[in-house]
Amino acid sequence: MAVDKITSMPYAGWIEPWDERQIVLSTRLRLARNINGRPFPNRLTDAEAEAVAKEVIAALPEDRQWHVLHMSELLQAEKGVLLEKHLASRELLQQQAGRALAVNDEQTLAVMINEEDHLRMQAILPGLQPEEGWRQISLLDDQLAARLDIAYDQRLGFLTACPSNLGTGLRVSVMVHLPALAMTGKLDAIFRRLPQAGLTVRGVYGEGSQSQSGLYQISNQITLGHSEDDIIAQLRQLVEAIIAQEVQAREWLRRNKGLQLADAVGRAVGVLANAHLLAGREAMEQISLVRLGVAMGLCRRISYREVNLLMVSCRSALLQASAQKELTTEERDALRADMARKYFGGGDAV
Amino acid sequence: MAVDKITSMPYAGWIEPWDERQIVLSTRLRLARNINGRPFPNRLTDAEAEAVAKEVIAALPEDRQWHVLHMSELLQAEKGVLLEKHLASRELLQQQAGRALAVNDEQTLAVMINEEDHLRMQAILPGLQPEEGWRQISLLDDQLAARLDIAYDQRLGFLTACPSNLGTGLRVSVMVHLPALAMTGKLDAIFRRLPQAGLTVRGVYGEGSQSQSGLYQISNQITLGHSEDDIIAQLRQLVEAIIAQEVQAREWLRRNKGLQLADAVGRAVGVLANAHLLAGREAMEQISLVRLGVAMGLCRRISYREVNLLMVSCRSALLQASAQKELTTEERDALRADMARKYFGGGDAV
Repeated sequence: MAVDKITSMPYAGWIEPWDERQIVLSTRLRLARNINGRPFPNRLTDAEAEAVAKEVIAALPEDRQWHVLHMSELLQAEKGVLLEKHLASRELLQQQAGRALAVNDEQTLAVMINEEDHLRMQAILPGLQPEEGWRQISLLDDQLAARLDIAYDQRLGFLTACPSNLGTGLRVSVMVHLPALAMTGKLDAIFRRLPQAGLTVRGVYGEGSQSQSGLYQISNQITLGHSEDDIIAQLRQLVEAIIAQEVQAREWLRRNKGLQLADAVGRAVGVLANAHLLAGREAMEQISLVRLGVAMGLCRRISYREVNLLMVSCRSALLQASAQKELTTEERDALRADMARKYFGGGDAV
Repeated sequence: MAVDKITSMPYAGWIEPWDERQIVLSTRLRLARNINGRPFPNRLTDAEAEAVAKEVIAALPEDRQWHVLHMSELLQAEKGVLLEKHLASRELLQQQAGRALAVNDEQTLAVMINEEDHLRMQAILPGLQPEEGWRQISLLDDQLAARLDIAYDQRLGFLTACPSNLGTGLRVSVMVHLPALAMTGKLDAIFRRLPQAGLTVRGVYGEGSQSQSGLYQISNQITLGHSEDDIIAQLRQLVEAIIAQEVQAREWLRRNKGLQLADAVGRAVGVLANAHLLAGREAMEQISLVRLGVAMGLCRRISYREVNLLMVSCRSALLQASAQKELTTEERDALRADMARKYFGGGDAV
């Protein structure tokens, strides 16, 4: 079992800074595919599900090293990490028989087996790279399709369990950090226009469209009636427009609220570098401010790479997994604070 | 005019740490005296008040260097500093003709002239030193009485404008830092028992009995019917009992809330060392926590002397006076934050 390797590393496909501004942290692409002549996973018996899993695992291409994790063999803590790392969905993790996850060694490609569809392939890349992501995931798709009989209809395209995935079966998501637009109250207006363009948004590390982390996931809503290239081009165009607005908002803050900005960033550094108890929600808020500070040259004590790593490492499941035992909330908050202090070179002497 | 020297220095008689625990910051003694045959100050004409002031100033003993500040010649900013430093009362500062303040070079002795009484002498000493304070203030009293005809009644003692000061005319106050008793919610019960012992309490840098700074002023209420030695002995006894309770509360916190304490102290250090805007109220709260941290060995980045100095320097009037111009609230908060960061060795790079 390679589960340790997958769950103990905070790597989530977007730790390495991709571009200077780091407004887009990562691009994720997901393809939904099903095998001809088999019921969709929610109608499979345990034995049938296991047979599908066996077939898919056998079809994984040999040009990569795959780690196959069977849901029935995972600890709760390990499942939490897979969820936080966006490698597996809650739906997959809640099931057992024939439910599995194949991850390549670099954790940039993953195949969920018997989630809503027989196959859910995923590629994660740093920065805004939907075209390169599409190249990678369609190569994997071609390799699997060469060995599996994939359900395809001339009129509807790829068949999926849920009609919302019909057609291309392609979902492209980008994770964007928009703290300046959030601070200046411009986010709601921008987000309200996304559905018209066939896009949807949700807060990351938060509830609903709220986000403690200033991070948002923007995805295409529509998979049917558009080519993959169209979906990718439209998403890129809209995300680039949002990036430009975030850059503008940062400049506005610098010119008009320089002192308040320096204060907010400074206080966030102060708390992360000195707290001994840090709840997850607060950690995300403070890290988001520090990340903005790094972007704006206001914070030289930590690099982008470190702030990305800290953001991922602070998440509860990863902390829980690193402790190797069940933690109380206070123990987890203490562990999170210890880790944050280390990132800022702080020890016990404050 | 020596006003600059008096108003520009944050020295307030208790900056130098007196003992290891620093629970008592300072002891202040005040004697109220009046000159025979002159109406009390609130009944004096301007000319009479000026004559009294002249007489008192001429009677100041030559063994010390006195700086005499006339209220009519002070700027508003300077008055604010005198108030914050407990060298003059609001009542004195609001008046003009014949109202003056004499302060010795070390700012340990002061004489308010024509406040509520013709003379209000004051001695300020670091730590719990009511006996030494009494020695110093009664020496000054003797020196002045040798040159002035002080109003004294065999039965009532020293005559004063307000009956509450009759008798000894002695008010002894100690400034105590009780953050652990405040945190553990024990303060109210302790303070409720003080009036029975003839003592009164008020929060310093706060409103009413609340205190943002964890600092409280404990004073004797009764001046009549007790000897000076009795007043001093009783105050010492009660203050020592409160010190013991604060020490106990600190030990309780260390044993039972060690993590929460380290967290609170750490966050306070983090904010003071990194904020760029700091309101007076928040500064006092954070400094109080840091002061507790210093006392408990949880904070090695700042010394008692520095934390005392920071506490005094952060006050609005002193900041205002140091800026040499009228400041907006934001400018003052920025100046306060700049100063706090310097104390923690921080610059603009956070």
